[in-house]
Amino acid sequence: MPKPAAPGLRIHRFAAGKWTEAPDAVVTEEPLQLLLDGEPLAVVMRTPGADIELAFGLLFAEGIIRSTGDVRGIRISAEAGETEDRIGVEPVLMESNHVDVLLATKPKRKPQRSMLASSACGVCGTQMIDDLRHDLAALPPGPIFDPTTLPGLVEILRSGQGVFDRTGGLHAAGLFDANGSVVALREDVGRHNAVDKVVGRLLLDGRLPGSNTLLVVSGRAGYEIVQKSIGAGIPLLAAVGAPSSLAVALAREFNQTLVGFLRGDRFNVYSGHQRLTKE
Amino acid sequence: MPKPAAPGLRIHRFAAGKWTEAPDAVVTEEPLQLLLDGEPLAVVMRTPGADIELAFGLLFAEGIIRSTGDVRGIRISAEAGETEDRIGVEPVLMESNHVDVLLATKPKRKPQRSMLASSACGVCGTQMIDDLRHDLAALPPGPIFDPTTLPGLVEILRSGQGVFDRTGGLHAAGLFDANGSVVALREDVGRHNAVDKVVGRLLLDGRLPGSNTLLVVSGRAGYEIVQKSIGAGIPLLAAVGAPSSLAVALAREFNQTLVGFLRGDRFNVYSGHQRLTKE
Repeated sequence: MPKPAAPGLRIHRFAAGKWTEAPDAVVTEEPLQLLLDGEPLAVVMRTPGADIELAFGLLFAEGIIRSTGDVRGIRISAEAGETEDRIGVEPVLMESNHVDVLLATKPKRKPQRSMLASSACGVCGTQMIDDLRHDLAALPPGPIFDPTTLPGLVEILRSGQGVFDRTGGLHAAGLFDANGSVVALREDVGRHNAVDKVVGRLLLDGRLPGSNTLLVVSGRAGYEIVQKSIGAGIPLLAAVGAPSSLAVALAREFNQTLVGFLRGDRFNVYSGHQRLTKE
Repeated sequence: MPKPAAPGLRIHRFAAGKWTEAPDAVVTEEPLQLLLDGEPLAVVMRTPGADIELAFGLLFAEGIIRSTGDVRGIRISAEAGETEDRIGVEPVLMESNHVDVLLATKPKRKPQRSMLASSACGVCGTQMIDDLRHDLAALPPGPIFDPTTLPGLVEILRSGQGVFDRTGGLHAAGLFDANGSVVALREDVGRHNAVDKVVGRLLLDGRLPGSNTLLVVSGRAGYEIVQKSIGAGIPLLAAVGAPSSLAVALAREFNQTLVGFLRGDRFNVYSGHQRLTKE
């Protein structure tokens, strides 16, 4: 499968009190525009590769197709290089990150409104970031955070998570000030929801933008969490898990400090390293 | 915050070749119907508690409100017991799992189509499962799977995940037959996508329903993954992570075997234990 990991990224690593610079790889996250008989149906954030399978699985899950007999052909960018023996695939000169499924019959079921994604988004990472420029402002420089405070924040996040201890099933988001004091801790089965709750709290308290705060999240850093936290004016986002390529691109574009793999006494910095150094 | 974990669940535990029965707790996942001036806007799957914060965070992220001044009041079910000092909250006799945000002015921005969720879903777990009865059929009894094969499948899933090794950022879904042989392994930055790709592969190969297969996923088991796998006729779903309350309810209703915390030589069975015992 093509380009599952983005090549050629350089990051800063902090471990046991020392900085190093290193090459790194992050997983590719890009939007896919799914079309049905030439009409835009949904934009799905995904890792490129197996786009035809993804399109068929999604259309099946939505009840729009039930078998290959419901499909008369597929149009996909020639550069994707995908084909399927059982379905006629037409490699066309369409933009990359598009799959058009041509139905043999009427849809078995009308597409749900839940599938309809914003048509405003472009469907390559670069285009999507261009579009976000209308909604998001680049974060101003500063403040400076002490890198040695970061590792302890995960412990505070976990100790605040009573339900996680019992169920292992909750994501957490914790907002801290520059001294590492808790501003708000929220947990939810959905990791976006935990971030929405924290930002909602800031809004209710009239504390937006969160200019002097940092946000720690228990899961991975996908583009949506980066987007939400930049929108709330939070200058540093640290995730216990991995960031995606689009998350890194977005953080770099809008001057957010993005930390990943915050575990034990170490972490990686993918963007905005200057907020963690005193010089 | 109210009811973050569902009480009173009994499960079967398999560890080092032996079965035990035990009480357990899972995280509560329930739909929230968000309304704007009385009009349905979105249904969000979330853990109950801090619903006002969640609503405000979501509306801020979507650019619909920018400050508390944009809101003249909130209507929320009296039983939710939530209030906010800075906003007029009217506890009303509306259904639980609803929050209605009343705007002081026109929305700062028209809601995106991406926010509009299916209005067909009910917004309590029970209602949602009732609605799914129109789309999903209960799985037939059988087949029987050998519980000792399950732990090894996670190793196969991981060894097939070349990109995960380098980036730590991919979710995986692996479909196996009853002997533990691989039918399809797929990975993606989104865990739903990995499942959609596997189901898409089955569909393209004319192998749906997946009656004699089991699906292993690298992350947690939320209700959507249970729904997608039941729709594909897969009788056993095993997750490395935790299941949610709605995932367990759905699996029990539609006779799917649901395994969680598949780690090392042990796992928990939340539903359909009979498919893992020879009697």
